[in-house]
Amino acid sequence: MTDEFLDCLKSVILGVNECKGRSMRNIKLTIEYDGTRYHGWQRQENAVTVQEVVEKAIHKLTGEEVNVTGCSRTDEGVHALGHVSNFRTQSSIPADRFAYALNTWLPEDVAVVRSEEADEAFHARFDSKGKKYRYIVHNAPCRSALLRSRAWHVMHVLDVAAMQKAAEALVGTHDFTAFMATGSNAKTTVRTMYSAKVEQQGNTVYFEVQGDGFLYNMVRIMAGTLVYVGLGKISAGEVPEIITGKDRKKAGMTAPAPGLYLVEVFY
Amino acid sequence: MTDEFLDCLKSVILGVNECKGRSMRNIKLTIEYDGTRYHGWQRQENAVTVQEVVEKAIHKLTGEEVNVTGCSRTDEGVHALGHVSNFRTQSSIPADRFAYALNTWLPEDVAVVRSEEADEAFHARFDSKGKKYRYIVHNAPCRSALLRSRAWHVMHVLDVAAMQKAAEALVGTHDFTAFMATGSNAKTTVRTMYSAKVEQQGNTVYFEVQGDGFLYNMVRIMAGTLVYVGLGKISAGEVPEIITGKDRKKAGMTAPAPGLYLVEVFY
Repeated sequence: MTDEFLDCLKSVILGVNECKGRSMRNIKLTIEYDGTRYHGWQRQENAVTVQEVVEKAIHKLTGEEVNVTGCSRTDEGVHALGHVSNFRTQSSIPADRFAYALNTWLPEDVAVVRSEEADEAFHARFDSKGKKYRYIVHNAPCRSALLRSRAWHVMHVLDVAAMQKAAEALVGTHDFTAFMATGSNAKTTVRTMYSAKVEQQGNTVYFEVQGDGFLYNMVRIMAGTLVYVGLGKISAGEVPEIITGKDRKKAGMTAPAPGLYLVEVFY
Repeated sequence: MTDEFLDCLKSVILGVNECKGRSMRNIKLTIEYDGTRYHGWQRQENAVTVQEVVEKAIHKLTGEEVNVTGCSRTDEGVHALGHVSNFRTQSSIPADRFAYALNTWLPEDVAVVRSEEADEAFHARFDSKGKKYRYIVHNAPCRSALLRSRAWHVMHVLDVAAMQKAAEALVGTHDFTAFMATGSNAKTTVRTMYSAKVEQQGNTVYFEVQGDGFLYNMVRIMAGTLVYVGLGKISAGEVPEIITGKDRKKAGMTAPAPGLYLVEVFY
């Protein structure tokens, strides 16, 4: 079994699609998860991650030891509505049935919402053309029981119109160094934001942003900056200068992880 | 201390508003809770209830042993956005500050969203003129990680238009015996529903109902019946007959507790 598996792995590495007569398939998973209990997506020593529970569920279902490739890491406590990943399998389970079958093995706070056959070469991370994130702020005098671990509780009334104006300044192609966690390294700090919107529904304020890629902590720093604008600590007109200034210290705080949701990945 | 408390209690029972020089106040609380961990609102032996944790928080805050009067019981697993209750206290804490102060003592899944001074005679249960409930159905092929314990997962596509038609039939003054859990006893089974609406937002179907009062399990049986209509097991046109037939067996199943939310109580 293990020898067979290693042979298969070798075949995959060599780009061979057949393995001892059974074809190696590439399955794309779209996963929703409540990140509260997890140290993010990516496998870690001594900490439970979403990748680990998904790989364990696949092992229970197929008997295979697979490596699930995620579209991106997520921080501890961050949620996903549509995290995308892929893995190679020799299983003959129809692609769309993986979702149902894996859900019976996954813990309640992780759910495959779609499973499908992907091209042999599909890679969840390298092929990503962009992502959509949502950040939720609960703006009310008292904390919420149902939104605990799901939103950032901000007590003081936010100026949503100012936040909307500030969000518009984020759209376009910019060097987002000011919105990157200090100490992180990226080949390039230039990213393109296709849209950035702030919307209010009752006492909930949503920030939704779509871009071709995001630097480390970028959405959380954007959300923190917008909340600072909503609180009057930064004016909406200052945001373009914050971008061009490339100084992390001029932007707002890094908003807490539990308000952040990876909504969709584009390919 | 205990003697003083008993004296106070006696004074309250006798309707006296003064107790050893300090006035006895009546505080109204509006509470949001995630019912997942609780055996409903009402105090029970050997089971954790919301009433118990609220009374413990008041004790920690004021040193008083109070009895918090709830607007109604809720079942195990049912949530509340605006459960109303009241309690008597000698504390001099400003009424609106109780919310903030109690929230520091309450567990994360229970939150006071408003606290206010009520009339001396105010009684959260007896003075209730009506309630608004919401029931959430997650209608998608695969289960949701973030809506676990927050909605009823129904896999098959619901006919929302038929559900809307069926909901209209519930409005008005009717004998709702068919929508009451068997074995429960109520002085009268006649209730007035002011409105009953079904709405779809993405893969979530909401049922919202307002009425002057509700029989035991009534909203959950209404929700279960509407889902049966949505699945084609019952036709929308049959609902008026189900009401007049007064036979619990003709209505749909009792929808699971975790989809139900007590939204508002009217006084």
